[in-house]
Amino acid sequence: MSTSPVKALVWGENFHEQENKLVREVYPDGMHACIAAALAEDPGIEAATATLQEPEHGLTAEALAAHDVLLWWGHAKHGEVADEVVERVAASVWAGMGLIVLHSGHFAKIFKRLLGTPCNLSWREAGEKERVWTVNPRHPIAAGLPPSFVLPQEEMYGEPFGIPEPLETVFVSWFEGGEVFRSGVTFRRGAGSIFYFQPGHEVYPTYHDPHVRQVLRNAVRWAANPQPRIEKVTDAPNVPAASAPEPLTERGPKLHAAGEEGFK
Amino acid sequence: MSTSPVKALVWGENFHEQENKLVREVYPDGMHACIAAALAEDPGIEAATATLQEPEHGLTAEALAAHDVLLWWGHAKHGEVADEVVERVAASVWAGMGLIVLHSGHFAKIFKRLLGTPCNLSWREAGEKERVWTVNPRHPIAAGLPPSFVLPQEEMYGEPFGIPEPLETVFVSWFEGGEVFRSGVTFRRGAGSIFYFQPGHEVYPTYHDPHVRQVLRNAVRWAANPQPRIEKVTDAPNVPAASAPEPLTERGPKLHAAGEEGFK
Amino acid sequence: MSTSPVKALVWGENFHEQENKLVREVYPDGMHACIAAALAEDPGIEAATATLQEPEHGLTAEALAAHDVLLWWGHAKHGEVADEVVERVAASVWAGMGLIVLHSGHFAKIFKRLLGTPCNLSWREAGEKERVWTVNPRHPIAAGLPPSFVLPQEEMYGEPFGIPEPLETVFVSWFEGGEVFRSGVTFRRGAGSIFYFQPGHEVYPTYHDPHVRQVLRNAVRWAANPQPRIEKVTDAPNVPAASAPEPLTERGPKLHAAGEEGFK
Amino acid sequence: MSTSPVKALVWGENFHEQENKLVREVYPDGMHACIAAALAEDPGIEAATATLQEPEHGLTAEALAAHDVLLWWGHAKHGEVADEVVERVAASVWAGMGLIVLHSGHFAKIFKRLLGTPCNLSWREAGEKERVWTVNPRHPIAAGLPPSFVLPQEEMYGEPFGIPEPLETVFVSWFEGGEVFRSGVTFRRGAGSIFYFQPGHEVYPTYHDPHVRQVLRNAVRWAANPQPRIEKVTDAPNVPAASAPEPLTERGPKLHAAGEEGFK
Repeated sequence: MSTSPVKALVWGENFHEQENKLVREVYPDGMHACIAAALAEDPGIEAATATLQEPEHGLTAEALAAHDVLLWWGHAKHGEVADEVVERVAASVWAGMGLIVLHSGHFAKIFKRLLGTPCNLSWREAGEKERVWTVNPRHPIAAGLPPSFVLPQEEMYGEPFGIPEPLETVFVSWFEGGEVFRSGVTFRRGAGSIFYFQPGHEVYPTYHDPHVRQVLRNAVRWAANPQPRIEKVTDAPNVPAASAPEPLTERGPKLHAAGEEGFK
Repeated sequence: MSTSPVKALVWGENFHEQENKLVREVYPDGMHACIAAALAEDPGIEAATATLQEPEHGLTAEALAAHDVLLWWGHAKHGEVADEVVERVAASVWAGMGLIVLHSGHFAKIFKRLLGTPCNLSWREAGEKERVWTVNPRHPIAAGLPPSFVLPQEEMYGEPFGIPEPLETVFVSWFEGGEVFRSGVTFRRGAGSIFYFQPGHEVYPTYHDPHVRQVLRNAVRWAANPQPRIEKVTDAPNVPAASAPEPLTERGPKLHAAGEEGFK
Repeated sequence: MSTSPVKALVWGENFHEQENKLVREVYPDGMHACIAAALAEDPGIEAATATLQEPEHGLTAEALAAHDVLLWWGHAKHGEVADEVVERVAASVWAGMGLIVLHSGHFAKIFKRLLGTPCNLSWREAGEKERVWTVNPRHPIAAGLPPSFVLPQEEMYGEPFGIPEPLETVFVSWFEGGEVFRSGVTFRRGAGSIFYFQPGHEVYPTYHDPHVRQVLRNAVRWAANPQPRIEKVTDAPNVPAASAPEPLTERGPKLHAAGEEGFK
Repeated sequence: MSTSPVKALVWGENFHEQENKLVREVYPDGMHACIAAALAEDPGIEAATATLQEPEHGLTAEALAAHDVLLWWGHAKHGEVADEVVERVAASVWAGMGLIVLHSGHFAKIFKRLLGTPCNLSWREAGEKERVWTVNPRHPIAAGLPPSFVLPQEEMYGEPFGIPEPLETVFVSWFEGGEVFRSGVTFRRGAGSIFYFQPGHEVYPTYHDPHVRQVLRNAVRWAANPQPRIEKVTDAPNVPAASAPEPLTERGPKLHAAGEEGFK
């Protein structure tokens, strides 16, 4: 049997690459382009990109409808992402679009919006060693990975991580400086699957690492929901007595007039 | 040993009681007053009230700091609750305040804010019978309840309920018209415990029902966190290399200057 | 791209079909054969069967290794399933085999073994109507289903259902007699995904129902883990200091001699 | 208001203390006695002990009924614990008794029985440093603890830890040798709350550490369920049509004769 490719859209803030020589040397075409290239190594994934600077940040209703999974890398410009776009992305996730939030995206509006928590953590930029451990072997996101792998230099993100209890914890990281972090965690919001993955500080070549690239490809496949999006995903439909699944005779006092919409 | 009473604050929208004769007859002192009286039947709970119409809706920083648990009943005026107050309540929950959201509060800004989902459902106001089943016997919120209890008339709320997978499902309800609903579910957001409880349509005497009143008292005790609130609950502290738990020598490129705050 | 078919093994107790005329009329080739035929309607699934009466109940190490997903229907003869086979199935699940437990299989040894709870419920055989509601729209197991579907006659299974909190609740059922039941729930044990589905009483034609058949096919695809099984899935490997990821000097007292195995 | 003390029963294998000079020096009265003394520092807890060597290992039906929470330390003699006693303890947990499993108790029959997974892990006895991080601040089990605390010497337990996804993850540990471990995790089985806590290797003075002792006291209070135990906790009651909550007319074929018990 054959299946259609998964369509992934890699969103990049695309700021540090433009402003900072160090980052540009590591990611000459932008971080988003490097991530998209990692995805495209899987013939079952088609990867496109969008950036903050595009109209509507490249996240039009059409773009969101056309992709199965959105990947998000942002850092310095979280505040410049339009609230309207954030709500549109949230609704797309509820309707079935997958979302993969990377590294400093923990503070992206969309991540905080969907998780309902501060999403804060402790951090240190010291070029220290991180060792990523798989705690959930054979989870689809961990497919093909060794028991642990090392990133010679990463930004430390430390617990407590201000997230709700994850649906599943896939990775936990050890840092040279003494901290630990739940570095790969999944959530579900409506029909949309969400994965957060901690590595990816902009001054280090993390997205060139083959293990990290494998995680990204795995996560895209895991997050894709082949079913059609849920329509009217925020509606609260009234089911009048005449349409009740079981025969029902209305009785008692009523606040709502017949056919009235509910309050929101 | 002795313990301090749990301090509960019952927030009421206080609109239908003022505008609708039917509701006023059922709840002559307001729904919030009836709920507070239910709580006060437990000598270990002290209950106060606040309403939409008060300055800052009665939800000042002082009021939130002074109470262990906030109960929320709103319906027609969700949109009139100030966003600033919603954020204040959310931060209080993250810091350790319990929150109990009642009935039509499923669409309250604070509930949607903390859950990160649409919180929608299907509904019908037909005075039909609801039977509430305990699916989690001996859960603290179900203490003292029979296997099931009947509300002769309730508003039908039906699945799918647009919430994240609950931490625990305590109650599931059967409706005369053929629907089911996860009518009692728990969540945790930061240090705050959250309980949603579906019964409580304003034209029926639900909050006079002894089983419902027992659930409310149980939930208040369950949601109370006796520990001090978390301070600076949204902060992301930088831990410089010199303060790392383990001896650490900085190396490699850096984006951030020493002592700099992170981006938000 | 193309993928291999999912290999499913349908295990049937195959007792009522042999002993009871009513059941034989509904399932002349056995319930397991009917279920396998439902799966085979998906060209991406290859379905085989095994029964209690075969040597090792048809669940040899080879059979378990050769299939991605095991479906289990048992009722009257749970006690006759050999403990050794149960342990073998459990280890296969931990290693990555999917498991779908059907109806009265809630009391199968393998289900209780993997869940660690009594898995009890209330029940009634009265030919009553069941309405199955999807509470988790667009979950892979609910793909293609309507918001709810009716089984004109099913055995009532009622809450409380003695299971751990599910990973996800997919279906909740309404019964004519007044009960509710979490009729579709998922769990994960090691690398193995587990789905329990309540409909399927032997005297009713449930496994001829198109919606039920769709659920079974969906569940098989969902439960299949294409990765290789985990080897030595119960081992607790010793990692001597010389092999530690970080340089480590042993110090302090020791109970274990070098190279010693741990206690089990 | 006043509440009764929580009654805790500390179960010790009591083998290393008898056989090994090193362990005896650290725990001259036995590990169980040291743990019980830690609990008794809380005036709200009454602590007793039981050991493997007592009749029925000190875990008679009366003993289990008389205590709110059971703590379990075992290591070399897991295999000597009678299966009958294990089932009795499991049933007590389902009925509402709390259970706290310590360190090498990850391989205790009762822990594997209740979790349904191998409960395996990697390990190393090298006297290395462990740093325990609270990932769930203000969780009752973390009350009064600092963000992290150090145990100068502990046995390394490393991921993957063969457990189901926890209800809540409270602690994650960093090890000097490079591993990480989810060192404090909660589960619920029936009405019983379960906490696993990793520190506690017998040759190190872990149970003399004030932070560890605080965790134990917190966990006992958290795990205690003041409600009466569930009776007949494994029963699957038949609810005949005549007793159905809603009026119900039996129809259709039947396998079971009236009043018959279900199969188990």
